[in-house]
Amino acid sequence: MSKVKIIGESLKNMPWEEKPEGCDQVVWRHSANPITDWNPTPSAARVYNSAVVPFEGEFVGVFRMDHKNGRAHLHFGRSKDALNWEFEDETINWVDADGNEAEPGYAYDPRVVKVEDTYYILWCSEFHGPTIGVGMTKDFKTFTRLEDAFVPFNRNGVLFPRKINDHFVMLNRPSDTGHTPFGDIFLSQSKDMTYWGKHRHVMSNGGSGWWQGTKIGGGPAPIETTEGWLMFYHGVSGTCNGYVYSMGATILDIDDPSKVLYRTRDYLLTPEKEYETTGFVPNVAFPCATLHDADTGRIAIYYGAADTYTAVAYCEVNELVEYIKANSEVF
Amino acid sequence: MSKVKIIGESLKNMPWEEKPEGCDQVVWRHSANPITDWNPTPSAARVYNSAVVPFEGEFVGVFRMDHKNGRAHLHFGRSKDALNWEFEDETINWVDADGNEAEPGYAYDPRVVKVEDTYYILWCSEFHGPTIGVGMTKDFKTFTRLEDAFVPFNRNGVLFPRKINDHFVMLNRPSDTGHTPFGDIFLSQSKDMTYWGKHRHVMSNGGSGWWQGTKIGGGPAPIETTEGWLMFYHGVSGTCNGYVYSMGATILDIDDPSKVLYRTRDYLLTPEKEYETTGFVPNVAFPCATLHDADTGRIAIYYGAADTYTAVAYCEVNELVEYIKANSEVF
Amino acid sequence: MSKVKIIGESLKNMPWEEKPEGCDQVVWRHSANPITDWNPTPSAARVYNSAVVPFEGEFVGVFRMDHKNGRAHLHFGRSKDALNWEFEDETINWVDADGNEAEPGYAYDPRVVKVEDTYYILWCSEFHGPTIGVGMTKDFKTFTRLEDAFVPFNRNGVLFPRKINDHFVMLNRPSDTGHTPFGDIFLSQSKDMTYWGKHRHVMSNGGSGWWQGTKIGGGPAPIETTEGWLMFYHGVSGTCNGYVYSMGATILDIDDPSKVLYRTRDYLLTPEKEYETTGFVPNVAFPCATLHDADTGRIAIYYGAADTYTAVAYCEVNELVEYIKANSEVF
Amino acid sequence: MSKVKIIGESLKNMPWEEKPEGCDQVVWRHSANPITDWNPTPSAARVYNSAVVPFEGEFVGVFRMDHKNGRAHLHFGRSKDALNWEFEDETINWVDADGNEAEPGYAYDPRVVKVEDTYYILWCSEFHGPTIGVGMTKDFKTFTRLEDAFVPFNRNGVLFPRKINDHFVMLNRPSDTGHTPFGDIFLSQSKDMTYWGKHRHVMSNGGSGWWQGTKIGGGPAPIETTEGWLMFYHGVSGTCNGYVYSMGATILDIDDPSKVLYRTRDYLLTPEKEYETTGFVPNVAFPCATLHDADTGRIAIYYGAADTYTAVAYCEVNELVEYIKANSEVF
Amino acid sequence: MSKVKIIGESLKNMPWEEKPEGCDQVVWRHSANPITDWNPTPSAARVYNSAVVPFEGEFVGVFRMDHKNGRAHLHFGRSKDALNWEFEDETINWVDADGNEAEPGYAYDPRVVKVEDTYYILWCSEFHGPTIGVGMTKDFKTFTRLEDAFVPFNRNGVLFPRKINDHFVMLNRPSDTGHTPFGDIFLSQSKDMTYWGKHRHVMSNGGSGWWQGTKIGGGPAPIETTEGWLMFYHGVSGTCNGYVYSMGATILDIDDPSKVLYRTRDYLLTPEKEYETTGFVPNVAFPCATLHDADTGRIAIYYGAADTYTAVAYCEVNELVEYIKANSEVF
Amino acid sequence: MSKVKIIGESLKNMPWEEKPEGCDQVVWRHSANPITDWNPTPSAARVYNSAVVPFEGEFVGVFRMDHKNGRAHLHFGRSKDALNWEFEDETINWVDADGNEAEPGYAYDPRVVKVEDTYYILWCSEFHGPTIGVGMTKDFKTFTRLEDAFVPFNRNGVLFPRKINDHFVMLNRPSDTGHTPFGDIFLSQSKDMTYWGKHRHVMSNGGSGWWQGTKIGGGPAPIETTEGWLMFYHGVSGTCNGYVYSMGATILDIDDPSKVLYRTRDYLLTPEKEYETTGFVPNVAFPCATLHDADTGRIAIYYGAADTYTAVAYCEVNELVEYIKANSEVF
Repeated sequence: MSKVKIIGESLKNMPWEEKPEGCDQVVWRHSANPITDWNPTPSAARVYNSAVVPFEGEFVGVFRMDHKNGRAHLHFGRSKDALNWEFEDETINWVDADGNEAEPGYAYDPRVVKVEDTYYILWCSEFHGPTIGVGMTKDFKTFTRLEDAFVPFNRNGVLFPRKINDHFVMLNRPSDTGHTPFGDIFLSQSKDMTYWGKHRHVMSNGGSGWWQGTKIGGGPAPIETTEGWLMFYHGVSGTCNGYVYSMGATILDIDDPSKVLYRTRDYLLTPEKEYETTGFVPNVAFPCATLHDADTGRIAIYYGAADTYTAVAYCEVNELVEYIKANSEVF
Repeated sequence: MSKVKIIGESLKNMPWEEKPEGCDQVVWRHSANPITDWNPTPSAARVYNSAVVPFEGEFVGVFRMDHKNGRAHLHFGRSKDALNWEFEDETINWVDADGNEAEPGYAYDPRVVKVEDTYYILWCSEFHGPTIGVGMTKDFKTFTRLEDAFVPFNRNGVLFPRKINDHFVMLNRPSDTGHTPFGDIFLSQSKDMTYWGKHRHVMSNGGSGWWQGTKIGGGPAPIETTEGWLMFYHGVSGTCNGYVYSMGATILDIDDPSKVLYRTRDYLLTPEKEYETTGFVPNVAFPCATLHDADTGRIAIYYGAADTYTAVAYCEVNELVEYIKANSEVF
Repeated sequence: MSKVKIIGESLKNMPWEEKPEGCDQVVWRHSANPITDWNPTPSAARVYNSAVVPFEGEFVGVFRMDHKNGRAHLHFGRSKDALNWEFEDETINWVDADGNEAEPGYAYDPRVVKVEDTYYILWCSEFHGPTIGVGMTKDFKTFTRLEDAFVPFNRNGVLFPRKINDHFVMLNRPSDTGHTPFGDIFLSQSKDMTYWGKHRHVMSNGGSGWWQGTKIGGGPAPIETTEGWLMFYHGVSGTCNGYVYSMGATILDIDDPSKVLYRTRDYLLTPEKEYETTGFVPNVAFPCATLHDADTGRIAIYYGAADTYTAVAYCEVNELVEYIKANSEVF
Repeated sequence: MSKVKIIGESLKNMPWEEKPEGCDQVVWRHSANPITDWNPTPSAARVYNSAVVPFEGEFVGVFRMDHKNGRAHLHFGRSKDALNWEFEDETINWVDADGNEAEPGYAYDPRVVKVEDTYYILWCSEFHGPTIGVGMTKDFKTFTRLEDAFVPFNRNGVLFPRKINDHFVMLNRPSDTGHTPFGDIFLSQSKDMTYWGKHRHVMSNGGSGWWQGTKIGGGPAPIETTEGWLMFYHGVSGTCNGYVYSMGATILDIDDPSKVLYRTRDYLLTPEKEYETTGFVPNVAFPCATLHDADTGRIAIYYGAADTYTAVAYCEVNELVEYIKANSEVF
Repeated sequence: MSKVKIIGESLKNMPWEEKPEGCDQVVWRHSANPITDWNPTPSAARVYNSAVVPFEGEFVGVFRMDHKNGRAHLHFGRSKDALNWEFEDETINWVDADGNEAEPGYAYDPRVVKVEDTYYILWCSEFHGPTIGVGMTKDFKTFTRLEDAFVPFNRNGVLFPRKINDHFVMLNRPSDTGHTPFGDIFLSQSKDMTYWGKHRHVMSNGGSGWWQGTKIGGGPAPIETTEGWLMFYHGVSGTCNGYVYSMGATILDIDDPSKVLYRTRDYLLTPEKEYETTGFVPNVAFPCATLHDADTGRIAIYYGAADTYTAVAYCEVNELVEYIKANSEVF
Repeated sequence: MSKVKIIGESLKNMPWEEKPEGCDQVVWRHSANPITDWNPTPSAARVYNSAVVPFEGEFVGVFRMDHKNGRAHLHFGRSKDALNWEFEDETINWVDADGNEAEPGYAYDPRVVKVEDTYYILWCSEFHGPTIGVGMTKDFKTFTRLEDAFVPFNRNGVLFPRKINDHFVMLNRPSDTGHTPFGDIFLSQSKDMTYWGKHRHVMSNGGSGWWQGTKIGGGPAPIETTEGWLMFYHGVSGTCNGYVYSMGATILDIDDPSKVLYRTRDYLLTPEKEYETTGFVPNVAFPCATLHDADTGRIAIYYGAADTYTAVAYCEVNELVEYIKANSEVF
């Protein structure tokens, strides 16, 4: 069996740690987690559920910061090593196509995805309820806001990193107004990033296990591999004392990503460490971004922990995909 | 002040009754209401919340029928006078563009809207939860299903009867999985009836009164008038013994129908009659269609009563619009 | 055993019908119920849950009217026979002690109680949630608003018709923001109708029966009798299809009305008639006022029916009190 | 195809009306429904959801009566024609095996089933929550209470009219403490009417229709036929304004009645008449007993209407069973 | 006053630590708690709420393991010292009496109780909702599944370690489908472990304190003592941020264990340590098993912590029973 | 701009620590937090949400202790340094004006406020639901209970430390029976601490931030300053895993404290430390008392942490008030 490979660019300077001795998991934690702490900037209380990308030889990111008034906003950050970050204390300054101010009322859980020469940013945005806000930038200096993708209520918008059959393709999770107790992943298509249609159901909560029994939502932008699209996602279990968010992954068909080829029956990572089990919202591990290197197959997963911290975990594409295929449950 | 006029076609043979002596309302009920009764066809228990249109000199309609198994389906009906209806006992046979069977799992609360030479049908459809199903016909013999307009959860899709700024425009009401206790009217646009975007918020529940304090939803296709788009809608009040559905109306800007120019502060009609207060769901008056005559300004409103009966009410466009403008509350 | 007598004034012209042949109830309905219908004035949809008093040889009242926007307001009405009423279409014009406008945001379920030479009006008023609004008048022309009696959330404020131990005494029912699923009757005291304290618990929902198992609330102003204070109240049963409001009565200690001497184990009247079982809120019989004649012991009870109609029932004080004593359950 | 026959006794004097002209239903209503009204005895407000049996050439029954305090009790009644009933105003006097008083705190929805020479009575009984109370009589004078069949929470206990494989067999519906929003029918077995075990799942709510989508529960004692056990049951649909209770039927395997052979896809009867849609609990049709004649195949179904009235409907066994088989959905 | 003694066998090799200096509690924690950690086997995430017994001079147990897919299963484990455990990674292989596979869909919170020469295993099992699953083994190699004891919904089945009055006796806790917000302990009896009846109510939630105000459930198998049956149980308090599970104990009558003789007014142990307050479900201490030595009166209590860890606490029977008697509240 | 000063007495021996190096917050934690631990007395499990005052040169306090039965009571404590406390194991012995025992059923979250020569104690008390209990003492030996201030349901009663316009003034927070999901601060007035009226709304939950989006409640007694009344309060954010309680502050008008002059847009302190994020109720910081020194402007804030611990934080009046004014949002 030939090795699974990432189809994409090399990224030699991404963060990496080898798997610890004796570890029998396919995903392992960064040894110096969490990489952010309480009060990361003067105005911010917590930074988590955020998106990083390589840019001009270093790294930049769009970060969810809960301000000290509790409200969530997006901030820009930059880093040489993708582990030690400098954050701007000012929120990102959105403008519309005409250059007019276009600030969302709140914004959280961003994803940043490069398609061709443009970086698209998707987040959960205020529009008489939460929906998918969309923006773009080419230089991380000017941030241009596009049309919201949907009417409310929607969350966890995730763009694929290239067009498929001549369409932009976006995962999304229909939701309700509150702490939604349900949620499946859907996929919507567009020729222009403005009009969305040809909606398809991708996958549901449930399965033989309980870690993803309450709801699920897309995570980082899918990674193109020789086996299909590798997509990390979060699954939620509803306990008598609240939700627990764990991390799983799926392989989607390369030409029709509404087709699930393989899907983790078990979670890949669940809150075990104090920075994951204790904080503003206990028991949350929420993946939002990856860095990955096509040459080596290394993947670094960025995930929010306890709605309070930013953390990193690692895996290797061949081992991970083989694991998913061998331990898959599609339903 | 010049008289308000309907912009559209004449319809001399529409149903009509003059306002009764002593009636001080702008909307009055048909004297022989309800026009349908329990068990309208062998397979159906109730027919209500349905859509009628003029066609080839007579009238046809797409009707919500709750079958005797309780599930809602769409049926075709025809009538010479738009009051006495012959219903088909078979549900409408949907096919896709290739002629393949494309039946929705359930279908309720249809609207039928003619745009140019095509009759578009919108309904609440099953797609891992309720969303807006869309279909079309030109002859009411072949019914072709198009793409669903949105991911779940959405209800009360209402198309405008002509393109505006070169777009199809559809009102819709984001919802949740159940008996949604909230709901605002939004508007979405499309160039092709397949991809939808440029979503706009139109109006919210609330206001100084309570009849529309819980949720609202669009009703019949808006009527073009010299003052703007006349749109009937339903408003819901939440009592300790359940929801009460009343009827209101609004005037939307002719070029930008997301702008509310005027809106009824008081309801136009609320359940008072036994066929409205008693039935499968007590206290419901739910407008879904109108017939109207541009020559005389006469409007017949078709509304569902108590989720059990079909009823008709009348008004006259000039009197109604003047009333709305004089008693408006926009918020 | 000597006959129970009302302590108070004579009221020869109050409405009265003898008990029908064969009726074995102690409370019987007025034969021409309901005495009001839908749309009693141009602005009002429904009039119910209202308070009447004798005044200058005829009758006046403060009426709950739900306007056609659904919101509840207080209106003044007058009648020669206390059955046929003329209502003002304008809401009551409240002013404060300085004559400034002092209109409540909403107002419902009024009681009117004469203490010495003043008519006090209590209602459920808007104050960041429902609480007991208080006002007064001497002539039913100038209506002066006093301080609200309590912080939210409270409903069903009922004043006693004379001071007891030199205190004004008010029954009230602590509530919550919505369709409160609980509720006991309390009693609060004041020397000046402004500052309230010495709160006492009077009675709870429950008992061996179910008609008052969910919540209870005070009704008309208590009637002073030779056996104690006769107080009608409503009790609520929670069925799978909503609340049912029935009418009961209690005898409170004449000097310490927080002491319940007797209390109806069975309801006195429950929704049976179509005007009680069908309307805006089905299955409601809600007593708010009485007229009574000390000479004859006759009592006419005014009650709201289905949150839609005003109705009247009759009883005779000696028979009623003997019945309550013989069929009492205090808990 | 040979005619379906009832296996059992003849009952020539049971109530009967032929199917009305033009009626296309397999179940039709008694023309003088309801057969009971409000306040059937001095202590009772409503009589409904009750069980009748032939006895000594006439008819007797155990009736649910809601007393005027709202609490449900069981009463004995007798009738010459099974339509005009004389009810005892006193509740049934239960004693245990030693003759000691054994009154349940409340008791509702009784079934009466003759097995061999004993009449067993099952009802929903108070035992720290609702469960299945069990009693027996041979003469309808002495009523002996047996052990409750289960721990809470259970409702709708229905006994089969003969032992099957040497076991008493009882249908039951696990429930919760309140207005249970779920519910499947199970079957439990006993050799002695005291110890219960070998529980089997019989059937669930759901199916392609909605009338039985929320919960279901057994109805009258199953009728033995040449095709299997004919069991009427109730199905509940959850609307935005409350539950609607309709009537269906199923054919169970004669030797293993946990096997559903056929089941009505459509309801047989749903609340349409005013005595079914309006009352203490609107929109309830709840079957509890049948009378049937093996010679003619005639069946009279006794059902509660709106938790207020007792009503009767008729059907004929061959037509009904053929209908069920032809319109069956088992799931 | 003579010393309280355990009636039973000696168990010299059970785990034991003397009470720490200065500790004024009657129950104290094992110094090396927790005795299990995250990921105890390759397939399992957490092991807790489990049952241990002495067997052939060493110790075995049936353990709740939440697999990495989140679903709960039962696993076998063995240990020489009852503190260091070797767990099988495979779930227990249940067969029915005929040797056919009989695996429950899920299984959690097991108890293991030896009656005569058989080890009975009870757990919460899937049967269209949770109920009490029952199985047996004599050698911990072949595990034979018996009939489920009840229809749903039931949890916390606990068998007594010997027959009482010739009956097997089982504690159980009627429940609902979800995170049950109520719960009393009942007792059911059987002559054959298949048919259950003669159900009795044992005790309720509530009392003067709040730690057991929401619900309660049985814990380890009761211990026979010279004062009666010593039964540990869990009590639950409902805070604004979730349930808190604490441990209490009761003394039941030796011949009629539905009679509560004494019951802890205060909890014996409540979550204080990090392994109890933090984990998959914070703030849980849930006792499931004991080891005890009749010679010394030593008791080791095995309890689940935070639905994540297994922990041990110790007490001495004489001191504990005297404490319970001196600090008892029975209600 | 002149410095803000506390108007009041000097308190040289209050606890104090200078702000740590590098701390950029205006409120900082005591370095040896928490100052109490689990099981502070033999009968008590937790001590928190409590009130301290200077008294006779040292310090005394009224403390909420959750007993080991879970129920909350008030205890007296004393300290020389206000950090190391000696608590009485007996609850406070309340008597009424006649010296009779007047113990509340439960009592929690006390405040102690000296007005003139009397120490008033307010707490959440049992009166058919929670309301504001009121008591007084002059010597902390005899504790005299006064009338409860309100009918249920109310919490967080906070008295001002002097009369304003000849009235006692009390903040309070109308509530419901459970874990209230809403809550605004109101103000009520009294001339005699017995009768309360002239209720005013002070401030609501909400604002641009989310930390106080669910509910708010008054904290320690307001501190009189040259800029107005400085009042600390708690704000609650509702996450998917429960409530988070943070600390804010407001400046109220000195003559009309229902007027909010300034209010913190951001929280001053939110649960970050393990003793705040982990315990009986995770994520609670709940201020109940201050000690402050008019000479230096130093303030020590006593707050409950995780409903388990007592903690202290510090600030300086001039810096704090300038901060509030500069970062204020009034709505």
